[in-house]
Amino acid sequence: MVIVIHLDSQDEKLSRLAIIRFVHARFYAPDAREEGELVALPADEAQHLTRVLRLARGAAVRVFNGRGDEFEATVEDTTKDEACVLLGGRRSSAPEPGVAVTLVQAVLKGDKMDDVVRDAVMMGAAALQPLVTARTEVSLATLEKARKRERWERIAISSAKQCGRAVVPQINEPLAFDTFMPTVAPLTLRATVLMFVEPGAAPEAIPLGALDSKPSAEAMIVVGPEGGWTREEVAAGIAACRVVTLGERILRADVMGVVGLAALFTAWKEF
Amino acid sequence: MVIVIHLDSQDEKLSRLAIIRFVHARFYAPDAREEGELVALPADEAQHLTRVLRLARGAAVRVFNGRGDEFEATVEDTTKDEACVLLGGRRSSAPEPGVAVTLVQAVLKGDKMDDVVRDAVMMGAAALQPLVTARTEVSLATLEKARKRERWERIAISSAKQCGRAVVPQINEPLAFDTFMPTVAPLTLRATVLMFVEPGAAPEAIPLGALDSKPSAEAMIVVGPEGGWTREEVAAGIAACRVVTLGERILRADVMGVVGLAALFTAWKEF
Repeated sequence: MVIVIHLDSQDEKLSRLAIIRFVHARFYAPDAREEGELVALPADEAQHLTRVLRLARGAAVRVFNGRGDEFEATVEDTTKDEACVLLGGRRSSAPEPGVAVTLVQAVLKGDKMDDVVRDAVMMGAAALQPLVTARTEVSLATLEKARKRERWERIAISSAKQCGRAVVPQINEPLAFDTFMPTVAPLTLRATVLMFVEPGAAPEAIPLGALDSKPSAEAMIVVGPEGGWTREEVAAGIAACRVVTLGERILRADVMGVVGLAALFTAWKEF
Repeated sequence: MVIVIHLDSQDEKLSRLAIIRFVHARFYAPDAREEGELVALPADEAQHLTRVLRLARGAAVRVFNGRGDEFEATVEDTTKDEACVLLGGRRSSAPEPGVAVTLVQAVLKGDKMDDVVRDAVMMGAAALQPLVTARTEVSLATLEKARKRERWERIAISSAKQCGRAVVPQINEPLAFDTFMPTVAPLTLRATVLMFVEPGAAPEAIPLGALDSKPSAEAMIVVGPEGGWTREEVAAGIAACRVVTLGERILRADVMGVVGLAALFTAWKEF
């Protein structure tokens, strides 16, 4: 349901907020399955509904289950911290890419992974695999202690809400490079696996444009940390998958993932 | 000249620093023109040479003039704040894209433009045109007072040094959207001009993938601020150039420029 609100130049800012409130009130409800169900929202989502947007019984909203289903819904009941919605008809959400791409990303410094997760979700990635490499400046133990995976999951949900996807990409448990790499070779039977390296890192590396660009149903792009890959890691990549460069371009690690996704989705006509 | 230094796993980090010092010592010397010339470096560059890298007479370096020429060079003379180099033979630098793309970017909040400039240079943009739109949160007067153009120029130089380009993209004077837009229609005779909008912003907007992807020699991509374009701005875009979406994707304004460049360069086989 789209509620049309008159916009005039004087109060356009206010009205835009109102439109966002009504049109973009999408909530994540992993339990939503079929029209007619009464579904409780998770605590975070219920609080967003009741405290931030201050919606009450009868309000029209949308819910999506993170697995691709989205519904019209009506708020049925709220308390301060809980919210129940009644699922109405199915509706379409932002279409998913035809290729399920997993972004395998070496964990970056500080909060930079937050932006990587957000942008990967918005670009349409199917999953994110955080990686701890030789030059990653944080250990698996520290990531676990800081509950980083859970944080990235919350960011993935919030990003899916914003960009209109009904799929919340899976955030896998961070893995060490040496644990991850042996899983890659069998994958290449059905998936296109590309490891991005700096130009000159290895004579075996070929420019992305020189690949035949036929899409497979699954793909994986593997991106290193700020300090780059070690020679051993590049050698392991060459043995297991396709090692590619962006021609002669050297980019910041922060944007390599989103640029890799953009390049693949363009080559495979997903945009 | 590449100085090969033995690497063993014990002191790899130290040796990598040493390699970076010798192999990547590139300096920006806008006055460099021909082999055999004696050229003074600009003050910033001279200080980088003498104080940060502590190079002295006889050191082998590389210099580029920002217009595409790069030379081997030898440090001829230094004082605390000055450095003179003797130009040797020409050498090749990171190749420039076949399409000269100007990124026309609405100024973003805080320091976010710094990253946009850095990434646009690394991606291979030919120029950057900062834009002040209706929803840009900073005025032309404030940008001028804060000497932002000069700041972005320094970032462009430093980014070109890092990524191996011998071209420093031009950072144009920021313009108001309403001043810039009338200059676009005549440009479209020779250049591909694409304005990126959110999906649903206008029925005239077509997905990037639906464009015929023949490269022109010049292109321009126009990217809005965090708050998006106003309806009037989208209408002005439709009248003057091609208005495109990334299919159904909604992205953060921070990465829209780099994603647009990646998509174009992929479609036009520049990677």
